[in-house]
Amino acid sequence: MRELVFIGLGLNDEKAISIRGLEETQTADSVFMELYTSLLPGFSLERFEAMSGKKVRMVSRRNLEEENGRLILDATERGKAVFLVPGDPFMATTHVTLRIEAKKRDIKTRIVHGASIISAVIGLSGLHNYKFGKTVTVPFPENFSETPYNVVSENKSLGLHTLCLLDLKPDENRFLSVKAGLELLLAVEQKRKKGAVTPDTLAIGIARVGGESPSLKADYAKNLLTYDFGGPPQSLILPGELHFMEVEALIAFAGAPEKLRGVL
Amino acid sequence: MRELVFIGLGLNDEKAISIRGLEETQTADSVFMELYTSLLPGFSLERFEAMSGKKVRMVSRRNLEEENGRLILDATERGKAVFLVPGDPFMATTHVTLRIEAKKRDIKTRIVHGASIISAVIGLSGLHNYKFGKTVTVPFPENFSETPYNVVSENKSLGLHTLCLLDLKPDENRFLSVKAGLELLLAVEQKRKKGAVTPDTLAIGIARVGGESPSLKADYAKNLLTYDFGGPPQSLILPGELHFMEVEALIAFAGAPEKLRGVL
Repeated sequence: MRELVFIGLGLNDEKAISIRGLEETQTADSVFMELYTSLLPGFSLERFEAMSGKKVRMVSRRNLEEENGRLILDATERGKAVFLVPGDPFMATTHVTLRIEAKKRDIKTRIVHGASIISAVIGLSGLHNYKFGKTVTVPFPENFSETPYNVVSENKSLGLHTLCLLDLKPDENRFLSVKAGLELLLAVEQKRKKGAVTPDTLAIGIARVGGESPSLKADYAKNLLTYDFGGPPQSLILPGELHFMEVEALIAFAGAPEKLRGVL
Repeated sequence: MRELVFIGLGLNDEKAISIRGLEETQTADSVFMELYTSLLPGFSLERFEAMSGKKVRMVSRRNLEEENGRLILDATERGKAVFLVPGDPFMATTHVTLRIEAKKRDIKTRIVHGASIISAVIGLSGLHNYKFGKTVTVPFPENFSETPYNVVSENKSLGLHTLCLLDLKPDENRFLSVKAGLELLLAVEQKRKKGAVTPDTLAIGIARVGGESPSLKADYAKNLLTYDFGGPPQSLILPGELHFMEVEALIAFAGAPEKLRGVL
């Protein structure tokens, strides 16, 4: 039976993989990895190869998207292939395409899950998961779009929080910062004036979730613009209506202004 | 420095923990675990204790909620305490309360993330993460509520998918099934008649995500009512507008009716 196992690397570094994920890698006949859909800032390929006892073949965006993952699919002819990806597999839609392609070729696929930025950022923030609306990605300035602003605005009108992922291209060493993400939202506010993201809007910036020293700060947008979050990857949350327990969590862990208590 | 480390056990069994999570456990002075906020159907405490070399103290809902986690907080006086929880920590809001309590007592907290049902179910389904609206939990019949129906209806009006978590009480061996979840939604449809969940609505049932044999089936609600998903835990997705790649994924992996292709 030809077989391809998608394995989530989790967040930040090589020790975020699950025990099962490592075991599947140790018993694989071919091992592939991509590190272009997200950044694992503490990841060492050398340490991962030592842990797994396997030589890892790095896959580029071009390998995967232009060649339909032929490299990986062909490898299943020589036994079990594993494909290691940052976070939880299939949060990146490009890997769904590869999985469908495998199915067409009658290759069995399995998934070993990993920690995802989606749940980790929400958990770290102390906000309640069931109060988040649609997630959106804020693009680089050259791909400027009003969509992120509209998603925040729509979620807010329903009382919901918005997780704004910030675009990144690790293969080009480019990462959108909390500051740049907020600036895009504030620029659209200038035009649309819905009041969804003003300098006085509470926002939460998060950096390097899953790492030894994640950075987390809740403050008004104007103050976050000058806050030093350190290196990438970074994310942004625009909260909707806050439960009093969420306010307590933001004050305790994200240094939110204490006067937030009075607003409820 | 007094320290409490929250560690996500991930999904399904004891091998879903990360390498870092296992190492933090191996070097802990006290080890606590709860298995009441979610079910890990393949989990063996005996195997986990053998892997970690530690005796684990199980914490009940009562320990945690009525006694404010005193047991765990007090243990930090004797060195590093770790608290192992299913999935990714803080998806369960009760643990946010414990973290705030720790902060009040000047106990340092850290988080080691794990795979969460939230991202895993979305990934397994092949649907696109950024097309999900608000998540909702469908309660047991004795806590009947129209909220889940309203959330599905609201998300659909925005073209968005809804992840419906199904309530569970592992400590009482009670688990809501896909069938029971759909029945609640269909019952509200009878009264509200918004067309959000009818017998002819496409739905996706998922069981035992992260396990060796997860079950995944996309079909019209009337057909899913009699589909055998096997044991718990189970989840339900009510899709909104589908992208053609999402349709292909549902046909390939969830056995969705091929005629869905014609609907787009």
